[in-house]
Amino acid sequence: MTRLVPPPAPADSPDDVEAAFYRAMQQGDLDQLMALWADEDEIACIHPGGIRALGAQAVRASFESIFAVGSVDVRPESVRRLLSQAVAVHHVVERIQGITPEGPQAAYVVATNVYVRTPLGWRMLVHHASPGGEIGSPDFSESGMMLH
Amino acid sequence: MTRLVPPPAPADSPDDVEAAFYRAMQQGDLDQLMALWADEDEIACIHPGGIRALGAQAVRASFESIFAVGSVDVRPESVRRLLSQAVAVHHVVERIQGITPEGPQAAYVVATNVYVRTPLGWRMLVHHASPGGEIGSPDFSESGMMLH
Repeated sequence: MTRLVPPPAPADSPDDVEAAFYRAMQQGDLDQLMALWADEDEIACIHPGGIRALGAQAVRASFESIFAVGSVDVRPESVRRLLSQAVAVHHVVERIQGITPEGPQAAYVVATNVYVRTPLGWRMLVHHASPGGEIGSPDFSESGMMLH
Repeated sequence: MTRLVPPPAPADSPDDVEAAFYRAMQQGDLDQLMALWADEDEIACIHPGGIRALGAQAVRASFESIFAVGSVDVRPESVRRLLSQAVAVHHVVERIQGITPEGPQAAYVVATNVYVRTPLGWRMLVHHASPGGEIGSPDFSESGMMLH
């Protein structure tokens, strides 16, 4: 049976796309997730394991293999936004919750999300996610201080 | 003695900034490296260890601690470029050469570099670098095939 996916409403802002992106991750919904990206060749996704997916087919394949294991319990935190007329860059700390033999555990991932304005609304162009160190690990804040 | 740093010539293209960025890394030249960034508050740098530096002071402090150990023998490879009128996004595989007790060793880092056009020429806005897996590790190519 073919599953019918309603076309997503045009996203009015990068925040709309970002919220829908993390919702699709939480639900393991590949079609909804792929509908959020800009067109085809230009998109890029780098996963915490170091895999680099370039182009829509490769990005789809990379998320397919992630969702084959299950959905991802991920919550965006500490979002920092840079917005120009046609491009937006968000820096996000992702809190990912997992169940291990020792019980529930949280890990942090640091992500850069780039969005572009298209005739269909805002779309995702880049998702670069990488291991964020341990909770409470050193970070350089805006003031240039190192927080321990 | 105060070291005089000549103001850099306006960069004509994102490629110019990128070449100068990796040259400054290779030379461990903090002042030249910092001169390549856009102004102040908006810049962001994520290092392979997961440290996130936001703002000029923090970015400077993070590279200062890197260069305190030494310069970085880094070569950009496999650069993929997206260029709009005011913003450019480059995806780069960085080959980093180090000397270990077992002899010279290469590691790969995956980086997303974002550049913006300013009145002073192109400048770096984001450098997000993360561990790139081992040489020959799985990658999703543009064709969507998984390469082993």
